Amino acid sequence: MKLSGLPVKTNKNVRQFESKNATLLQKAGFIDQTMAGVYAFLPLGWRVLTKIEQIVREEMDRIGVEVFMPAIVPTKLWETTGRLETVDVLMKAVPANASAALKNDAEYVLSSTHEEVVTPLVMKFNRSYRDFPFAVYQIQTKFRSEPRAKSGLLRCREFRMKDLYSFHVSEADLKKYYEIVKKAYLEVFRRLGLGDDTVVVLASGGDFTKDYSHEFQTRCDTGEDTVFRVPSSEVAFNREVAPAKAPPVTYRDTDMLPRKDVEGKGIIGVDELARFLKIPVEKTTKTLIFKADDGQIIVAAVRGGYDVSEVKLAKAAGVKSLRLTDPETVKQITGAQTGYAGILNLPDTVRVFIDESVGNRRNFETGANRTDFHSTNVNFGRDLPEPGRFYDIKVARPGDLFPDTGEPYEVFQACEVGNIFPLNTKFSTAFGYLFTDESGSTHPVYMGSYGIGTSRVMGVIVEKFSDDRGLVWPRAVAPFAAHLITLKGAEKRGAQVYRELTDSGIEILWDDREESAGVKFSDADLLGIPYRLVVSPKTGELVEIKLRTSSASELLSLGAVIKTIKADKE
Amino acid sequence: MKLSGLPVKTNKNVRQFESKNATLLQKAGFIDQTMAGVYAFLPLGWRVLTKIEQIVREEMDRIGVEVFMPAIVPTKLWETTGRLETVDVLMKAVPANASAALKNDAEYVLSSTHEEVVTPLVMKFNRSYRDFPFAVYQIQTKFRSEPRAKSGLLRCREFRMKDLYSFHVSEADLKKYYEIVKKAYLEVFRRLGLGDDTVVVLASGGDFTKDYSHEFQTRCDTGEDTVFRVPSSEVAFNREVAPAKAPPVTYRDTDMLPRKDVEGKGIIGVDELARFLKIPVEKTTKTLIFKADDGQIIVAAVRGGYDVSEVKLAKAAGVKSLRLTDPETVKQITGAQTGYAGILNLPDTVRVFIDESVGNRRNFETGANRTDFHSTNVNFGRDLPEPGRFYDIKVARPGDLFPDTGEPYEVFQACEVGNIFPLNTKFSTAFGYLFTDESGSTHPVYMGSYGIGTSRVMGVIVEKFSDDRGLVWPRAVAPFAAHLITLKGAEKRGAQVYRELTDSGIEILWDDREESAGVKFSDADLLGIPYRLVVSPKTGELVEIKLRTSSASELLSLGAVIKTIKADKE
Repeated sequence: MKLSGLPVKTNKNVRQFESKNATLLQKAGFIDQTMAGVYAFLPLGWRVLTKIEQIVREEMDRIGVEVFMPAIVPTKLWETTGRLETVDVLMKAVPANASAALKNDAEYVLSSTHEEVVTPLVMKFNRSYRDFPFAVYQIQTKFRSEPRAKSGLLRCREFRMKDLYSFHVSEADLKKYYEIVKKAYLEVFRRLGLGDDTVVVLASGGDFTKDYSHEFQTRCDTGEDTVFRVPSSEVAFNREVAPAKAPPVTYRDTDMLPRKDVEGKGIIGVDELARFLKIPVEKTTKTLIFKADDGQIIVAAVRGGYDVSEVKLAKAAGVKSLRLTDPETVKQITGAQTGYAGILNLPDTVRVFIDESVGNRRNFETGANRTDFHSTNVNFGRDLPEPGRFYDIKVARPGDLFPDTGEPYEVFQACEVGNIFPLNTKFSTAFGYLFTDESGSTHPVYMGSYGIGTSRVMGVIVEKFSDDRGLVWPRAVAPFAAHLITLKGAEKRGAQVYRELTDSGIEILWDDREESAGVKFSDADLLGIPYRLVVSPKTGELVEIKLRTSSASELLSLGAVIKTIKADKE
Repeated sequence: MKLSGLPVKTNKNVRQFESKNATLLQKAGFIDQTMAGVYAFLPLGWRVLTKIEQIVREEMDRIGVEVFMPAIVPTKLWETTGRLETVDVLMKAVPANASAALKNDAEYVLSSTHEEVVTPLVMKFNRSYRDFPFAVYQIQTKFRSEPRAKSGLLRCREFRMKDLYSFHVSEADLKKYYEIVKKAYLEVFRRLGLGDDTVVVLASGGDFTKDYSHEFQTRCDTGEDTVFRVPSSEVAFNREVAPAKAPPVTYRDTDMLPRKDVEGKGIIGVDELARFLKIPVEKTTKTLIFKADDGQIIVAAVRGGYDVSEVKLAKAAGVKSLRLTDPETVKQITGAQTGYAGILNLPDTVRVFIDESVGNRRNFETGANRTDFHSTNVNFGRDLPEPGRFYDIKVARPGDLFPDTGEPYEVFQACEVGNIFPLNTKFSTAFGYLFTDESGSTHPVYMGSYGIGTSRVMGVIVEKFSDDRGLVWPRAVAPFAAHLITLKGAEKRGAQVYRELTDSGIEILWDDREESAGVKFSDADLLGIPYRLVVSPKTGELVEIKLRTSSASELLSLGAVIKTIKADKE
């Protein structure tokens, strides 16, 4: 392709977006923001996305069969599963104006995922145990009404996604296929150039399972997720579910000191409190009071510096959901205003969950359950009974230990590039999808759901590989294999090189514009195509070849250039 | 691909849909109706659609560059062109529930076309005359809130479409490119197997141009459109714009008879009237009274049996739009109730357009402009003055003549498979898209817009080629080249044939199910794959080969089968 024929230009003065991928991809003319969270893919960007999707397609074809389900679907499908009202990023399609409403005033769900479509679809065809297992997938546009869409291609209102759904006669068969998908996903990320830095991470199973779901997380400094990896094994956790043991406290109090109630009006938050009390933060305790979906009051305490994990707390308490309770209830329970709650003298009507980080401390602080007061030098066994059990209800922090082995986690930032969910029987039950077994009796079908955000992967690749000069594409997804620059006086030789490279089957972008060498070289760096080739009056019959990721160039014959580029193919 | 691995089955008992394509494609398991006008593409159907789109892509890549624009876009873009309120099939995306609305209550247009997106997009990059001409295209899902979606893939609420947009510095350059697109489209339809039966048809230019737009219409008995083709030339018209001369009347009145006003209370409509008056329908006259957008009252008269073409009438009157006026105005103008309007004694305040079909008649009938009365034996020059000019304001009918040559049209039903529009400066003016010419002055950009409904094309292919046994796919878009049936006792040989065919690069669907020969043969006919291959204990080392479109089969060696199928490739 000739650069002069592209109706898109690089724009070094594009405004700084909040994410690196949005800024760089627009500077290079790969995408264009139509509005926050919604992008048009321009010719070079569309080539990259198409290559990513083709790799995904090839690997999915080994484990499922491709279909294409619609985006707008009847609302009654989503009513059947109860998700019409609960998915808080769901959109619907309605008439845009009065004359459209007059002709057809129906409303449709604009799909953010397709469990509600695929389940009733496949149950039309597959009702006998002999029909199982099977899996269908699609690659298409999805819609989510994201409130904050500030991360370029990483968090969009409209995005591209591969979603795969599998169907099984038993949980065991689902689990077997689930492992096959894991392997296929790792192969996808390997081929995309992300293999070395992508790990399988345990995450919350949501409504679907008491087990974990799994995320595929790619190491990336600008990633939104924090991964806790166990160095001695392959196991890694998303922060929200990472089991965590706090490291031992660093202060050394040997004797119990007399408990004191200290007035500290308006001193709220453990850092301010620690400064005020002149104690280390790790001596403080954070106590929060929640109301569960079933009405129970739940008090949770963690060591100062930690946050309470609502996911872990809900699991520990065996409740579905939690929210912080209102100031009035806090007052009722603690006798104090919000901000002074502690674990002393709590009424029997509440359930108390004390994190293990709260234990193993001498002379710690806790809210006094008395407005404006904090109690210091508190000790289990003296000021309150030793709890029968300590829990793990905290959000893990760097420095925490993996409880099973006691080793500190390796902690890193990462971007989610895929996720897989054992849906079990949630959707088959909602739609009454039963299969008949060999003996003629019926059972609900087991399902799994498996996603890869293909446009998001494109953003992650940019976040991960780009440098201060521009984009850097892995060969497998680069819009072209090579970027040919011809300098003034070498136009004829350039055209010949372009033709021969094209004829040899190498995808090549030719900068045939009448621009200065400086502009052409800096645009080549910005576009990030793996090989840069230069033909100038000085190179004669040879061609200068340089990798985008290297500063060293070589002068080679055209034949040798073709050989080098072809040998380097995935 | 093995048929046993497909999670879809044929269903001969599927309900009868209103269109042949919906019924047959669902019987064969190619698509599944999610709701009226919205379909999921199942594995075989998705393969067909993908092949259609790849052919379109290859031809469009010769004349433009591929991009991918978003489906949800800011409403303000559509406000800019004024189409937010006027496009009566437009939908918008809004939050689906209360919690989604709480987080982000924005509304977006759900695109039915992309002029509003592409214009502001490309104007960011291309402002100098040196940047022109250029064209971008995309292949993607579009949304239209169709009130009546009853024609399967031919008229959908969600459908696949290729849309191309071109940009030019002059109308002349637009016209030049427009001809290039016409050729590219004809090549697309040739490759899709529709070439022999697809014609370029002149249609209304809509708001965009006083010239025609062009439709690509494929002959098809079940088509919604009627094409009027001039036999002696390449010219064809969509019914709504076909210039038409009525054939001479067949009755022979030589003398003028005395005019009579006949009472015929409640006799409305030319057929009933002709019976009542005992005259041929062609002696009657239909008179309609319209109000134009600018308030003018326009009276239109056509020979009985014809309809008034609002498109032609608006053009003749030089007004933008028309609608039938209310009974009160009719009364005011004619002095009579609706149903008795005629061309006698009309007030000077109205403009009268008399179709040429009304002339050249002796002793004709017209409404008497007197409630319950019709005038017969009316003659120009005696009962009312000979009009200064006759117009062509009728909807053409089979039997009509092409006015330029006087020859009768060839008239046939057809399905629209593509359309191309000279948009001229409508959208560039709305968005202020000006380019700078060599002298530094600025002018609005000329645009064209060019569509092919790829999923619609799939429906047209079914309407056109299928027979009473099932689908019949042209080779270029068939989901597979060959359908291999193995009968009981030939499983081993079948597996070998399947492997060798696959290795030779032939796309093959293998019916490896444990089903009877009868089921397999009838499913093969239903699926409509071009070649049927049979391996049975009787065929030995040979393979039976038969075309779907033929009843004759042959026994060939596997090598000869491979050669035959490969030689037949597009």
